[in-house]
Amino acid sequence: MKSIAILGSTGSIGRQTLDIVKGHPERLRVVALASGSGNLSALAEQVERFKPSLVSVPDAQAARELSELLTSSKRRTEIVHGDKGLTAVATHPDAETLVTGVVGFLGLIPTTAAIRAGKTIALANKETLVAAGAVVMPMCRHYGATIVPVDSEHSAIFQSRASHSTQDIRQLWLTASGGPFRTWSKEQINNATIDDALRHPNWSMGPKITVDSATLMNKGLEIIEACWLFDVHPDQVRVMIHPQSILHSAVEFVDGSVIGQMGLPDMRLPIHYALFWPERVNSRQVPALDLVKLGMLSFEEPDLERFPCLAIARRVAEDSTLPCVLNAANEVVVEAFLKGLIRFGDIACAIEKILERHQPVSKPSLDDILEADRWAREKSRLLVGASENR
Amino acid sequence: MKSIAILGSTGSIGRQTLDIVKGHPERLRVVALASGSGNLSALAEQVERFKPSLVSVPDAQAARELSELLTSSKRRTEIVHGDKGLTAVATHPDAETLVTGVVGFLGLIPTTAAIRAGKTIALANKETLVAAGAVVMPMCRHYGATIVPVDSEHSAIFQSRASHSTQDIRQLWLTASGGPFRTWSKEQINNATIDDALRHPNWSMGPKITVDSATLMNKGLEIIEACWLFDVHPDQVRVMIHPQSILHSAVEFVDGSVIGQMGLPDMRLPIHYALFWPERVNSRQVPALDLVKLGMLSFEEPDLERFPCLAIARRVAEDSTLPCVLNAANEVVVEAFLKGLIRFGDIACAIEKILERHQPVSKPSLDDILEADRWAREKSRLLVGASENR
Repeated sequence: MKSIAILGSTGSIGRQTLDIVKGHPERLRVVALASGSGNLSALAEQVERFKPSLVSVPDAQAARELSELLTSSKRRTEIVHGDKGLTAVATHPDAETLVTGVVGFLGLIPTTAAIRAGKTIALANKETLVAAGAVVMPMCRHYGATIVPVDSEHSAIFQSRASHSTQDIRQLWLTASGGPFRTWSKEQINNATIDDALRHPNWSMGPKITVDSATLMNKGLEIIEACWLFDVHPDQVRVMIHPQSILHSAVEFVDGSVIGQMGLPDMRLPIHYALFWPERVNSRQVPALDLVKLGMLSFEEPDLERFPCLAIARRVAEDSTLPCVLNAANEVVVEAFLKGLIRFGDIACAIEKILERHQPVSKPSLDDILEADRWAREKSRLLVGASENR
Repeated sequence: MKSIAILGSTGSIGRQTLDIVKGHPERLRVVALASGSGNLSALAEQVERFKPSLVSVPDAQAARELSELLTSSKRRTEIVHGDKGLTAVATHPDAETLVTGVVGFLGLIPTTAAIRAGKTIALANKETLVAAGAVVMPMCRHYGATIVPVDSEHSAIFQSRASHSTQDIRQLWLTASGGPFRTWSKEQINNATIDDALRHPNWSMGPKITVDSATLMNKGLEIIEACWLFDVHPDQVRVMIHPQSILHSAVEFVDGSVIGQMGLPDMRLPIHYALFWPERVNSRQVPALDLVKLGMLSFEEPDLERFPCLAIARRVAEDSTLPCVLNAANEVVVEAFLKGLIRFGDIACAIEKILERHQPVSKPSLDDILEADRWAREKSRLLVGASENR
C-alpha cells in the first residue's frame, strides 16, 4: 500500500490522480489533499470519498466553509489553510509520494519542502523546474528525493532513458502536438480568440497549459524542464511536431539507437506510471494503443516564425534568473489573455519585453529566484494592464 | 578491449561486424573467425586485416588453400576446419562475445558449445532458437550465458524491455516491413521470380533471409524466437506491418505504456549494440535517424491469406519438435526456390505438407531436435526434388 499526498486535488491532474487511486484501492491510499481552486464542494466530495487525514484550502474562510460541507469525514480529517497548509500537505509524514498538480510558480515552495522531507515527487508542475531547477535539482541530490515527471513528454524520456547515464544520451526528442494553430497563418494566430486557444486537438488539460500549448511556450518550458531533469544542454533537445501525440518523446543514444515511449494521449498514463514507479502495475483504465488502427504517425519541423515563444524559451534556457522571469511573465501574460486584456499575438511580444528589461543573476539562489519572480510579475502586470492578484 | 569471435565472417552479418570492429580499433579485437562460404580470398583478406589467432574453414582442402593465400599472417593464425573447427572458434578461450552470423540450423552445435563456455552470444542465427529454444534457453540459464539478439526486431525488444521482468510485459509488437510483395495480389505473389523475391525494399541481407522476408516466414520464425528470448506466449506477440522499417519493434507493458526502439534499417546498429552490450558506445558509422525528414511512419495489419507462412509459424509455436521441423523444411524449400526447382507460391504448401506428416515430440531433448531436423530435411528434399547437400 502506497500513501500519497496531492497538491491541486480539484484540478485536472488532481482529479485524474484520484481516478487512478479509485482503480487501485488495494495499492494506493490518499493521506493528504490540497486545493486552491475555491471549488469547495468538489473538495468536500473528495474528502468524503478518500478520507485523507489532512486537507488544505486557501484561507481560513474556506476552511470554515469546508468544515460545514463535511459530514461523516469531519472527525478524521484535519483542515489547514494557506501556505503553511500547502506545505503541511506536501510534507505529510505518512506520504511516500507527493503529486504536485498545482499550476504555476506557487508549487515551488511546498515542492522544495517535500524534497527536504525526502519524498518522491510526481511532478506535474513544470514551473517549479523551469523557474528554480538550479536550486531544486541539487536539493534533490542532497536529500535523496526523486522527481518522477508527470508531463507526458518527460515521463516518456524518463521511461526511455531507463538506467542509462547522461553520457549515453546524444539528444532528447521532445514531441509537440503543435496545438490548435498548427496549420493556421501568422495573421490568424495573432487574432485567435480565447475559445480557439482552449480547443486543444489531443489533450484535455487546464486552461493555462492549454494556452501554453497553443503558443508552443509549453514546449519551450519543457526544453528547460528537460535540461534540468536529464542534465543535458538545450542544444541536445530537439523539438518535433507530431500532431497525433502518440510518440510522447524519445531518447537518441550515442550509438544511434532511439528509444521512445508511446501511448494514447491520456494524462492518466504518466500519472499512473509516476504513482507506482519504480514498479509497473497492470491497468486497463486507459484503452490500449493500437498503431494499426491509427494507421500512421507524422512528424514536422516546428515553425519558429509563427510560434516565437519556442525560440524565446530556448534562448533563455540557461542557469540564471532568465527562465524564472520567462515563466513569471508567461503566467501573467497568459492570464491577461484569458481575461481578454490582450490579443493572442501579444503574448510573445509582452514576454520578450519583460525579458529584455531583466538583469539576469547567474547561478541564482532560491532568494534570487523568488525576487526575480516577484519583479517579473510586477512588470508584466503593469505591461498588460492587469490588476494585482495571485 | 573486448575480444570477439565470429561464425560466418564472410557473410552479411560477419562483414558488417568487422566493419564495426574497424571503427573501434581501441575497443574491439577479433580473436577467431569461421567462414563456411568457400569465399577463401575474402576470408584471407579478413585474416590479414584482423590477425585472429584462429580461423576455421569447411574442410581440409579449404584449409590448405587458405594457408597458401595467407602471407604475413601465416605464422600467427592457426587454421582449423569442419565442425570441430567451428566449435573451436565458438569457444575460443580469449573471446568474451561470440557473433553467430551463420545462416540456418548449422549454427546450433557451435552456439551450444559457446553457451557451455559461458560466452555472451550476439545471436543473428535465429534458427538456433526457433529449432532448439527448448534446449538452448535452459542451457543459458545453467551456464550463465547471455544471448543478446542481433535481429533488429529482437534487439529492439531487448533494448525496450531493459530491466523489466516478464510479468511487466502485456505483449510484444513485432514489426515487419512487409517485404517486396506487400502490395502484390496473391496471384502475382505465387508466380514471383527469384529476382523479385530478392529485392527487399529496406534491408540488405543474405538471400535465404531475404526470401523469408518475402514470404513473411521470417516474421513467423521471429514470433517463435521472441517467445523463447522473452519468455512470452505466442498470443502475446502481435505482428504489424510497418513498411518504413523505422520502429524496429516495441514492448507494450501492463500499465498501457509502450516502449519502442527506432533507427534506420541498418544491421550495423543492432550488431554494434550487441558487441558493446551492456555499454552504449558512441558511433557515427550509421547516419542519425531523422523522423522529420522521413515525415511519417505507417502501420497495417498483416494479411495471412496472401502470406500463409506467418499463420503456419504461429500455429506451430510450441514447445515441441514442430518449430524445428518448420525451420528445416523452410530451409530446404527456400533453397529449392532459389535453385528454380519450385515456384514462390509452392513454398508454404510444401512446408505445410512436411509439418502434417511429422509426429511431434513435446519438450524435446537436443537429440530429439537433431533427429527431427534430419527427418524434415530428408522429407523436404524428396518433396521438392532436391538432391542431398548441406
